[in-house]
Amino acid sequence: MEEIYADLSFPTRETRPYVLINMVASLDGKVTTGGKAGSIGSSIDRALMRSLRASSDAVMTGAGTLRAEMLNLSVPEELTRRRTALGRKPQPLAVLITHSGDLPLEENLIGASPDNLLILTSTETPEERLATLRSRASVEVSKLDQNSRLDLSDALKTLKQRYSIHTLLVEGGPALNHALVENKLADELFLTLAPKLLGGTGPETLTILKGPPVPARLTKSKLLSVHLSAGDELFLRYALPPALLA
Amino acid sequence: MEEIYADLSFPTRETRPYVLINMVASLDGKVTTGGKAGSIGSSIDRALMRSLRASSDAVMTGAGTLRAEMLNLSVPEELTRRRTALGRKPQPLAVLITHSGDLPLEENLIGASPDNLLILTSTETPEERLATLRSRASVEVSKLDQNSRLDLSDALKTLKQRYSIHTLLVEGGPALNHALVENKLADELFLTLAPKLLGGTGPETLTILKGPPVPARLTKSKLLSVHLSAGDELFLRYALPPALLA
Repeated sequence: MEEIYADLSFPTRETRPYVLINMVASLDGKVTTGGKAGSIGSSIDRALMRSLRASSDAVMTGAGTLRAEMLNLSVPEELTRRRTALGRKPQPLAVLITHSGDLPLEENLIGASPDNLLILTSTETPEERLATLRSRASVEVSKLDQNSRLDLSDALKTLKQRYSIHTLLVEGGPALNHALVENKLADELFLTLAPKLLGGTGPETLTILKGPPVPARLTKSKLLSVHLSAGDELFLRYALPPALLA
Repeated sequence: MEEIYADLSFPTRETRPYVLINMVASLDGKVTTGGKAGSIGSSIDRALMRSLRASSDAVMTGAGTLRAEMLNLSVPEELTRRRTALGRKPQPLAVLITHSGDLPLEENLIGASPDNLLILTSTETPEERLATLRSRASVEVSKLDQNSRLDLSDALKTLKQRYSIHTLLVEGGPALNHALVENKLADELFLTLAPKLLGGTGPETLTILKGPPVPARLTKSKLLSVHLSAGDELFLRYALPPALLA
């Protein structure tokens, strides 16, 4: 089971990375328990997450997730070995993305090496915050889009052109996933469906997408593969509209 | 594909019906678009819904669903034929369940025949409303549980003992599903996973369960079958804890 995503290779796009989203959800669509992700998936799910990390040039997380919970960016030796065997750099570039620059790096981020951490932020980030971020990581500043949010196309273009990121793995949270889908920037969804009913109210109602209805022309996806584990987890891979129309 | 749930038979329980929940959800766990269920599933999903209706003695819907949208309880001739072939009554008993008796029967219910409609309500329903309901349907009044809500165990016991309902199909909504799961009264979940990303805020964030976190001992489920349609829908059947522990 642990090997099902070991041999993946992905198309190369010209102006941005090929973008994969990886999430685990319960049968009732929940991606957090007690307001945090974490224990929904099994050890096999976590092994497959490492496979996807091994196949990606960079791993991106949204600022909301970092504000909600501890984020461990340390790279286990096994992943380094697998990457080296695949002819890749030992570590995927760790990328945090934030419109406002409000990132609790001291409090919630562990295992991040400044020379392997990139923060994508926007022109809305105050200069003082930028200086703080620059002391901990590389920083790139994107313009705003027509909705006055960080321009994701611009940020992804930077990843491709300045950092040679051809395959980008996004691990949420739901607001970042939604923004990518809505802007036609997410190519594939790796969804683990855990055999659990979680329920929950408030922040626990988060599903893999947080945001307004997705425009009808962007809702459809195509199932690329299904795998079932002995523990009744389903591992689903879907192509999303940008990959379908490419 | 339309035949995969045609030959199901279910265990008989002593004190209550064997309870199936049938829902269709998007990849991001949503069960409504624009606040209503309806167009998430394909024609195959709707055919399978009819198969489950053919195999059930009664079909139950929660009051919240009736308040949110039109409900058509008319029984198509094809279903009557299939039920007769299975040696069943031509129509499953239509059951509405409501704590308060607040049911917009005139406005939102169509195709219901008074002699095949049962309303399960609680001692909280005012006498005046009871009289109105009794003019439209059979009515049973259940006591309240320890949380001062309609006692679901009591209502299901009534279904079994007075109406000979051995297999009950529940078609939502999320609040009723949650109450059944939380009270250990739901035996199986038939979940159709549509290959769509819907997003949405407010009432559109409804997933198959609406309510507080499910107690840990009741979260686990067991995958009984997986079917995949040409249209990339996944038809999943899960046993829930009451069926697992039986």
